Parts: sequence; C-alpha cells; structure tokens
Amino acid sequence: MTKGQLTIPSDENFFDATKALIEKWGADAIRDSDGTKLDPELKTLSMKFYSTYFVARGHNDFAKAHMDTTQELYLMSKRTLGAETSLAIPFMAEYYDQQIQPNYNNDPKVYWEVIDRTTGEVVAPERWLVDQNDNVVTIADSVPYHEYTVSFLAYMIWDPTEMYNHLTNDWGDKEHEIPFDVRQPGAADFMQNFLKEWLPANPEIDVVRFTTFFYHFTLVFDQHAREKFVDWLGYGGTVSVAALEAFEKVHGYRLRPEDFVDAGFYNSTFRPPSQHYLDYIDFIQRFVSDQAKILVDMVHAAGKEAMMFLGDNWIGAEPYGPYFKEIGLDSVVGSVGNGITLRLIADIPGVKYTEGRFLPYFFPDVFHEGNDPVIEARTNWLTARRAIMRKPLDRIGYGGYLKLANQFPEFVDYVTHVADEFRDIYQRIHDVKPYSGLKVGILNSWGKLRSWQPFIVAHGKWYQQTYSYEGVLEALSGAAVDVSFLSFSDILANGIPEDLDVIINVGAAGTAFSGGDIWRNEQLVTMMRQWVAAGHGFVGIGEPTATLVPYQGRRFQLADVLGVDQEIGYGLSTDRYDVPVDAAAKAFIVGALPLDFGEGARGLFPIGDATTVVKEDHDTRLVTNDYGAGRGVYLAGLPFSPTNANLLLRALYYAAHQEQSLNQYYAENPNVEVNAYPSAGLIAILNNTNEHQTSAVYLNGHQTNVDLVPGEIRWEREAE
Amino acid sequence: MTKGQLTIPSDENFFDATKALIEKWGADAIRDSDGTKLDPELKTLSMKFYSTYFVARGHNDFAKAHMDTTQELYLMSKRTLGAETSLAIPFMAEYYDQQIQPNYNNDPKVYWEVIDRTTGEVVAPERWLVDQNDNVVTIADSVPYHEYTVSFLAYMIWDPTEMYNHLTNDWGDKEHEIPFDVRQPGAADFMQNFLKEWLPANPEIDVVRFTTFFYHFTLVFDQHAREKFVDWLGYGGTVSVAALEAFEKVHGYRLRPEDFVDAGFYNSTFRPPSQHYLDYIDFIQRFVSDQAKILVDMVHAAGKEAMMFLGDNWIGAEPYGPYFKEIGLDSVVGSVGNGITLRLIADIPGVKYTEGRFLPYFFPDVFHEGNDPVIEARTNWLTARRAIMRKPLDRIGYGGYLKLANQFPEFVDYVTHVADEFRDIYQRIHDVKPYSGLKVGILNSWGKLRSWQPFIVAHGKWYQQTYSYEGVLEALSGAAVDVSFLSFSDILANGIPEDLDVIINVGAAGTAFSGGDIWRNEQLVTMMRQWVAAGHGFVGIGEPTATLVPYQGRRFQLADVLGVDQEIGYGLSTDRYDVPVDAAAKAFIVGALPLDFGEGARGLFPIGDATTVVKEDHDTRLVTNDYGAGRGVYLAGLPFSPTNANLLLRALYYAAHQEQSLNQYYAENPNVEVNAYPSAGLIAILNNTNEHQTSAVYLNGHQTNVDLVPGEIRWEREAE
Repeated sequence: MTKGQLTIPSDENFFDATKALIEKWGADAIRDSDGTKLDPELKTLSMKFYSTYFVARGHNDFAKAHMDTTQELYLMSKRTLGAETSLAIPFMAEYYDQQIQPNYNNDPKVYWEVIDRTTGEVVAPERWLVDQNDNVVTIADSVPYHEYTVSFLAYMIWDPTEMYNHLTNDWGDKEHEIPFDVRQPGAADFMQNFLKEWLPANPEIDVVRFTTFFYHFTLVFDQHAREKFVDWLGYGGTVSVAALEAFEKVHGYRLRPEDFVDAGFYNSTFRPPSQHYLDYIDFIQRFVSDQAKILVDMVHAAGKEAMMFLGDNWIGAEPYGPYFKEIGLDSVVGSVGNGITLRLIADIPGVKYTEGRFLPYFFPDVFHEGNDPVIEARTNWLTARRAIMRKPLDRIGYGGYLKLANQFPEFVDYVTHVADEFRDIYQRIHDVKPYSGLKVGILNSWGKLRSWQPFIVAHGKWYQQTYSYEGVLEALSGAAVDVSFLSFSDILANGIPEDLDVIINVGAAGTAFSGGDIWRNEQLVTMMRQWVAAGHGFVGIGEPTATLVPYQGRRFQLADVLGVDQEIGYGLSTDRYDVPVDAAAKAFIVGALPLDFGEGARGLFPIGDATTVVKEDHDTRLVTNDYGAGRGVYLAGLPFSPTNANLLLRALYYAAHQEQSLNQYYAENPNVEVNAYPSAGLIAILNNTNEHQTSAVYLNGHQTNVDLVPGEIRWEREAE
Repeated sequence: MTKGQLTIPSDENFFDATKALIEKWGADAIRDSDGTKLDPELKTLSMKFYSTYFVARGHNDFAKAHMDTTQELYLMSKRTLGAETSLAIPFMAEYYDQQIQPNYNNDPKVYWEVIDRTTGEVVAPERWLVDQNDNVVTIADSVPYHEYTVSFLAYMIWDPTEMYNHLTNDWGDKEHEIPFDVRQPGAADFMQNFLKEWLPANPEIDVVRFTTFFYHFTLVFDQHAREKFVDWLGYGGTVSVAALEAFEKVHGYRLRPEDFVDAGFYNSTFRPPSQHYLDYIDFIQRFVSDQAKILVDMVHAAGKEAMMFLGDNWIGAEPYGPYFKEIGLDSVVGSVGNGITLRLIADIPGVKYTEGRFLPYFFPDVFHEGNDPVIEARTNWLTARRAIMRKPLDRIGYGGYLKLANQFPEFVDYVTHVADEFRDIYQRIHDVKPYSGLKVGILNSWGKLRSWQPFIVAHGKWYQQTYSYEGVLEALSGAAVDVSFLSFSDILANGIPEDLDVIINVGAAGTAFSGGDIWRNEQLVTMMRQWVAAGHGFVGIGEPTATLVPYQGRRFQLADVLGVDQEIGYGLSTDRYDVPVDAAAKAFIVGALPLDFGEGARGLFPIGDATTVVKEDHDTRLVTNDYGAGRGVYLAGLPFSPTNANLLLRALYYAAHQEQSLNQYYAENPNVEVNAYPSAGLIAILNNTNEHQTSAVYLNGHQTNVDLVPGEIRWEREAE
C-alpha cells in the first residue's frame, strides 16, 4: 500500500470513518464539496486542506448593493415575422426571467440591434422603441413576412452553475447567487479585499481552489427553466459596455452586438472564428490573466497554494491560452470523464501539478441500493488509464458525500486499487518520456488554444454530430504517439513543424474543425500538398478540407491528396468507377477489425489513382492514396472503440509510410496496449478491459504472447 | 379484341409470323430498328410504316469530306500539379481518342483556357504552348503544387449513341458514324438536300422518325473506352466557334470556355443555372427549333408525318421548351421506364400524338432461355399504367427483334393483354379530365422546361443521391392530383399561380432542385411565407430551401414555414428538445404505413411550434407545422414505393388543410388506387400489383370494399 497524491471529500460527524478511509486509500488531501461541511476534528490530521473559493459569486451582499456590476451577455430574441401593422417583439419570451434581465442602464438604442434576418439589414434605431415594463421592442414599419430579431444586452442575475444545482436539487427559496463582473467599478477591489480578509481567516486551508475566476461559460435557460444554450467554451458572458469600450481602445474598432450574437450561433467553437471574435477572446484572456494573477499572488503571499478548477467560471483562463502561465497558478483540477479530458488536464503547461477528479461522484444517483458503483468507477479508470500511461496527472481525487461511498465496501476496495495503481504508475513513469512511434498534429482553426477540446459543446455530453469525430481524440489520448494541436494560422505563419509525421484534419464540412473556407487559401493547400508529397502523411476524417460551397470543382480542397472527394450532386454526371482494393493497405490498416464508421460522411468517391480499402454498399469509407513520397488516408468517421483506436493507429503508421515500425511496441489485440519508457527501461502492457485478454505483443520489436487478467498492467523490464 | 395504337418492330424473312402478331396484338404500325431490315412483303399490309431517320449522323460521305463540320464540345483535362520546371499537361490523357480529337482548326490561344484551379485564375495564353503532335499543353512557369487544367475545344468524331452500340455489341471494324454540325457551312444544305431526296425515294414510309435532330446529349468516354461523363440534358455537344460568335451577336457578350467547362461540372442540371448558361440554352433551343422546322416542313410537304424520338440527339429540342411547338412535329416517341417517363412523354404539349416504347426491348439480354420476359413486361406495364390513368399516351410500342419475342408465347399473350388494356383505358378516358383532389406545384430552378425531368442524370439509371427525391415524382406521376412545374424565376416574375394548393420543394442542399442561394432572395421567401400563411401547403423534402452556407442563422431559409431546420454543427450549443408528436397528423399522414425515408437528409431538428410526426432514433424524419392559415410538412426523403406514394398523397392533403377531401376517391390499401373521371361518369379502381388485393375504397365519398385479381382495373359507373 502506498500513500499520497489523492484528494477526497469528507462529511460532518464522520471523523473516524474518514480517518479509516484516509488510511486505507492513502489520501493526503481533503476537499470541501458543495453542500458538505467538514468535521472540525479533521484539522488535527496531517493532511492538506482544499477550500473551494468563489470569486465572482456567493457574495450577494456586494452584488445586491451593486446590481450594475452584474455579469452580462448579448442575447437574441426569437425570430418574429414582420406584420402590416407595427411589430411587437417580446424579446424575453424565450428566456428564464429568474436568470436573465434586460440591461436598461445602458441605452438600448446604442447597445442593442434589431435585425431583419431576411435581408441581414440592421433596422435603424429610430424605427423601433423599447417598452421597458413589458420587455417588448416595437418596430414601427416592419416588412410583412420578413423575420426580425432583437439583440439585447442583458444581465445574468443568477450564476448558471448555482442555478443548475439549485433547480436540479430543488433548493427552494435558497437565495440565488448573483455573479458580478470584475471589470465593473468597485468589483475588483471587493474581490481582492475579500480574499485579503479570507486568507488569514482560514489558516487551516493549504490550497485555495478557485471555482473559478470571473466569467462563466455560456449557459442560458429558457422560459421553462430548461437549458436553452450551452457552450463550455463560450465567451458570451464576458461582455459589458465597459468591455466594449476597453476593447475599442485596444483594437481600434468597435464591436457590434452581432459580433456576439452571430445570428444565434454565438460564436460556437464549430464556427470558423472571425477575426473580430479572435481579437475579442484574446482581449478577454489578457484581462482575465491580469486580474487572476493579482488574486493568485495574494494566495501565495499568504503561504498557500492556488488551484484552478477547469470549468464553471473559467472563461478567459483557458490553460492553453497565451497568457495562462502568467497567472502563476500552482495547479489545475478538473473532472476526468475519459482519456480526452484526462489529457486536457494532464497536458496543461505552466503549472506545478495537475489533479483529476474521477467518477463516479459520490451522489445518490449512483450510490443507491441495487446499483454497483464499481461498474462506473472501473469504466472511468480503465478509460482514463490509457491516457495516464501517456501523460500522468500528478494527483487524483473524488468528490461528493463520503458517507455515501463508505456504504459500498466493494467500491471502497476498488478505490484502494485505483489509488495504489495510480501511484505505482506515477512513480514509475511520471518523469519519463514514453516511446512515441509517430508525431501527429491535429490541424484545425483553434490549434493549441483548444488542445484536447475539439468537438466539445457541453463538457461530457454526447452529440450525434460529434461522436464520430471526437472518437479520434479519444483514440489518440492513449495511443503511443505524440499529439500536438496546430491552427491554420500557426502553420501559415510558421510553417509545418519540422518533426511531424502525420497531420490529421477531422470534422464536418464548414466547421472550424475541418476548417471551411480557409481551404480556399492557396498558400495553405500548396503548403500541405508539398509537405505530404515530401513523404509525410495526411489523414482526413469526415469532411476534411471541405468548403461548404465547392470551389473550382472540388468539395475537398485536398481531394488530390486524400484520393477522395465528396459528391453533393453537382458531379453526378461524372462516372465514378470502383477503384481497386489495395489488399496490402487493407491488411495493414483494417486486418480483421470489425468496422464502425459511426455517422460517417456520405457521398464520397475515390479519385485519381487512389485505392479503396473499405466500401460498404454504396458508401466509400476508407481510401488510401499515394501522393508523391507521402500518403493520404481518408476515413468516413471514427467513433471511439478499442478496435477503432487500433485502426486509427494503423492508419497513421500507414499514412506516415512507417508500417515497419508499428511492431516496435504493439499489441495485436485491440483491447491490449503497449507503452514503453525506454529511458526507464520499462514496458507496460495494459489490459484495457475487465475481461481476461490474450495477445501477441511486440516488445522492442520482439514478439511474444501475453495472458492478462482483467484490468491488468503488466510491467516488463526492457531487454538489454 | 381491339385494334390500333400499337407500333411493333419486324424482321427480315418473318412475314407470316409478323402478320399473325399484327392480328393478335392489333398492331397498326411497323417500325424499323437498329440492325434489322424489314421484309418487303410487309409493305403489302395496310399498316403505317415508321422509318428511323438520322439527320446528323450516318452520313459519313459528307462528314468525312467536311471534317471541319464535326460536332464539338469543350472538355477539361485532368487536374495536374504545377511543378518547379515547366508543366506539361497531356490534356487528352483521360479521353477516348476514337471519340475525341482536339480542335486545332481554331486557334487554341483564342478558344482554349488554362486555369489555375487552386486560385481560379486564368493563365495568360502567352504563358503556355500547345504541342499538336502529342496533345500536350506546356505551361512555362507554373506554381508548384497548384492544380492546373486545360479547357480545350474538341471534335467529337464518333456519334455517342452509335459508339455505345458499336462498343457494346462489338461491331468490330464497322465504320464509325461521324456527327456533323448543322451550324457549319454546307451542313444545313446537305441535311435538307438529303431529306429532299430521301422523301420521294421512300414512298412506303408514312412516318419519319427523327432520331433525333442535331445535337447529342453530353456523353463522353474515357481512355479505357468507358463512359466518363453523361448528362441526358447536357448542352455540352452544341458548341463551336460559329455558335460562340452567333451567341455574342444575339446576347451582346462573349462566352468563355469556363462557361461550358464549369470547373468540370459542365452545367449539370443539379447546378443552380447561371444566367450565362440559361442564355446559352435558350440560344440553342431557338436555333434547333428553327432548323428542325425546316426539315419537318419538308416531311409534311411530302405528305408524311414527322415524329421525334425523345433522346439521343434531342438537345435543344426539349419538348417543354419555349420554341418546341414551332417545330410543328406531329408526334414524340420515347422510352417508358416508369411513371415519370410516361408522364414526361404523355404531357408534352403541342403535338398531335405521343407514343411510348415499352419494356423489355426484344433483345437477348432478356429474351433468352431460362428467363421469363413477362416479369419485366408486367412490372413495366403496371408501373406505367398508374401514370396512364392520369394522362394517357396516344400510342404504345415495342422495339427490338420480333423473332426473338415470338419464341416466348406467354410474353406474346401478355403483350396482347397490354395492348387491349391500353386501348380500353384510352377509349374510355383519353379526352376526359381525371378527378384531381389537389393542385400541386414542383418548385425548382428549372420549372416547366424540365417537367418530369428533375434528378435525371443518365436516363433510367439509379443514383444513390437521387432516388430518395426522384421517388416524389414517380409517386406523383400516378397520383390523383394535378402536377405542374414552376421555376423560381416564374414565380418571381408572375407570382404563384392562383389555383395551386401545395408547393413542393425537393432535393439536396445547394442543388437546382432545392434551389441553393436563390433562397437568399427576400422577395422569394417573403412571397412563399405569405402564400402559405394565407392557407396553402408547403411540402419540403430532403434539404428544401437550403443554402449550402447558412444565412442569417438558418440553413433552411423557410425553416419557419417547414418547422424544421438542419444542423451542420454551428448550432450544436442550442438545446434541441423533442417536440410533441401530433397524433392526429401522424394518424392522417402515416397511419399504419411502413416507413422508408431512403437516404434521407440528416441533422434535422424541429423549431418553433412544429410537431414531430416521425423521429427514428436521433433522426427527425417527418415534421408538420401550422403556419398562419397554412401548413408546412417536412419529409427527410421519399424513395418510390406504393406505400410512400400513399404517404406523400396524405402529406399533400394534410399540407393543404384538406384532410376531409382525401376520402373522395381513395383506396386505403396503398397497392390500390382510385381514379375518377366525373364528366364521363367513370371510376377506375387499380390493383397496381401482380397479387390479389383487397381494400376499402371511397368512391365519390362512399365507402365500399373491393377484391381485385392481380393487375386488375375495375371500372365502375359513377353513382348518379
């Protein structure tokens, strides 16, 4: 049994049991959780104590005395048809009035916009009036059967996370926490002063866990108090007149409401970002970093550590952003749902340590009679463990009601196992670079800033439109390859990094992830072609390099590289013949794997000298194409599964023309993976399942067979 | 047994058997076929004789003496990557040199274009050279990794239909027929003079069956002598320097090669047509009509009839075009593959009669031992008969080797049945307007000009991208509704016809059939919204009203009318909740029908107050939406089947808010259909299958039950 690197929650009147669990699990830190109080006796233990700390909510005395500091966002009304008579738009009709209130403190005529969505024209402010009592905009002379919207600036009078918990847990008349904006007069002073007083008043706290800083990701509810809009990466809630004015000073131009409302898409990360939006998020990141640094410096001055929770009010503090390091945080903690989220946390640069909160949360939805919480715990651990083998977190933890977890002895035992296994892995490899057979770059509009974040809408939620693409990232999170994230502007400005072997472009047509109209840029396509032809690999998944409107005869602008293009109807007159199946490519990439391309893009057809690897009925699914000394590989989609992770790995090696290197460290059974740590002389063979597995494995090129018990990690010493 | 309205082929040395079949079938006309000669004795019979007549091919003496009159087209080379050194593009590499030869008689520097497809820029003629010996264009200073194409003017030295037959039937060294262009000097005179001599030399011929006039639909073969490009409606083969010059005189501007090549799409009918292309086809139609009229007038002067075959060299003579009537043809004959093609022929305005050639063709592919040709004949007849009940042809016919058909006595009997049934139907209803419960308009870019022709690529061929939309037309071809075809420019210029009940917009996003960017036209969307709100129905199928690039927040520009929009990723942050299932709408539209939406559009979500009728897993398939006094109905796709034809009919009635009228003349069993002819006091109840069927039927609103033998038509007298 080992000890340390584990954070657990506790409960009131639960000292002895907590102490026993601390012993059993080897925990070294205790955190508070929403709705729990810690037993005062715990403080007698030699543990680290974390305290959740809310900066911009949970201070209603200040907030209510300064309602004009309430956080704001731009919202769009329902689209409403023009009428012969004057048109009334009750713009609040689809919002939740306990969350959203129009901002009438700043002149709507200056800060709002009424738009004819049938023509895109802005309706002149002289042509409309606001009724502030009924929250109605009336347009004097609308065009019948045109659609109109009102973009209005609104206060967000209830913190979205607190609102969600409040509504979900039925907290009744508990006061709503009002989020206020650090940018508003007096707010920064209040925050700093509050912390200044709080720090000495909480001497037992070792780690201030900021939950989080200033601005919540965009989360808006509708008139039925249901979620209406959610974007875990959304900057919607950072705006204010003060922000607009400060922005203009920095960037020399003024943003419009439409720059935020974006016809109702609100700058979703799926939209190829406009320069205005890029300027704006940079502006907010700069501001948030500066303000957060002040608080973090105070924490340090008090001899404590500063930890950031990755979520809730984290907007502007994106850990892969350019100013994040300057904040000076000691650590980041986040929720681990899978390999992607593990890497999202573990790869964060510029902090001393990272911590992952594992599932299940100790809540009654899982911890109730008749349910076995070990099932979720095991799935969570085995899924995340793949990624830990590539880049371990520094700590793990759990949250919720410890009393509840303690009622499930098998779960208690499983956590013991997880904690011990985690510490064992960490001790062996945390400072060792794992063997990577290939260097792989994910190319999209966001690049490094949104490392491990492509396709996230609401953190952890499944979407029909994303799972077939997000699977690529989940597969890579535990694959024995180096992964980096590149933006189009990165490579346009700096070229393609020297040491990359394969570039992946994955996503739906027209989105920021496949890139959309950026692919009309001749410099980009020329650079990519040249790079592949020079002997590199390009893997396209879904609708890679696609412009929504075909350009110069192509839907995929790198169709020639990928060996495949997409039919949207314009080219039906051109005969598309079956191309030869490349038996060698098929044997290497697919082998005996079952196939699942998920939603898969449709209408694909091979071009040029490409070879098909998989065609299912009429649908081309997997194509390979020799391109100069390099290769293109196309896949219609790749939902996550162990077999698809294996297939992707093989496709990457194939694309890189390095088939012969696959069997350096490799397991033939997709449920088994091999990671090597040459400088430590270690090899780990993982059974990623809860079943017994056998596999032929290649250890430093030597084949042998293994037989693994459920969930096993077998450590081998590298042969001399 | 009845007689007449039936055309059959015959054979050499087959007089007695032919005579017997004429008797048995009641045939009144004999046609020649490719590769058959008629027995001279036939001329003793009192029959009409048709002669196939080729205008622009089959005259190699003239063609070879005037090779500069050979028909031409613009073709695009393979896309070729730019290189550091000079770039050579062997532009003929992917064409069949027995069909295609570059035109070097007209200066390539003037009439060709080299395009950088990576930038869309035209490469100045000074920068490239043509090697006429090797058919290579060399670009002096190409940009490496840009793609280049050569658009070249080429002679088509082999008539595509003759080429197809020649290659398919292995005609060996039989001379290739060279198509020549009526527009070239001497060609019109030759054609007219030839006909002038031919007419008196063929006194026994009653009907000159033009196969066809001057220009073949676009059909190009590749270097392996396989079909490379086919567009049954393509105007590619009409071009020449003379045509370009004449066009400039008429329209005041010059067309570029790119106006024809169109980045390799060659103005597919799936492309929303450019104004240049619309101008050009009008120009060709005018010219073809003028020239054809001269020939037809000569035929008439000789006391014969002029018939046009709908296909092969029919380009410019589109029967629904503005100048077609002026040609003065007596009749049009075409091949009947289904209900759509039957209506395409039967609905042709401005001719004295129409004739449909039924399947199977008497060829060995069907007429061989072990195969039962009755199967295809019956499917063909029952499929087409639905449409005949709405608008009968005036004649039917068969083609091929009569000797072959005569070896299948059951087939001979079946034709007897078809001929008798056809004449019986015709006699009862040919001059009677059938009852139509609704007036339905199909709205797309082509309107009336391409009546019954949407989604056709190569006549009769199945395409994955079209069958789910073409099914709508097949369903309508036999439905008890009036069908008209409207173009966007029609309704923009003239408004929506007064008496329409429902407008259908069906097709894939961005195509001419759904309309593409025309839906950004505020006049169009406003007009449509107003019309629906006034109490009409709008039925959208597939990706109706979609702009490829979402506009002002919508993918479907009439999303508000349809009650549904399409997610391409930008709106994933907006929560999409299930909407109520409208039980009444579901009961009315779907009832107990099995569902098949074919390829179906994806990513649909209901908006506003719409109600779902069908959702399958995550996919919204059928949505209804009340819109003012009217309704929108959305369907993801509609491949043809009897059940889908029934479902569409119900959806149309629902959209029109006329549910109560469905049971006027109606059969509940989708395999049974009711047509009424009130002015004749007749009702026909059809069993469209070769199985026994029972159904509840509504005859003038009165319910009764019928029991029908396979393929039966039951005629009832309308109750007084």
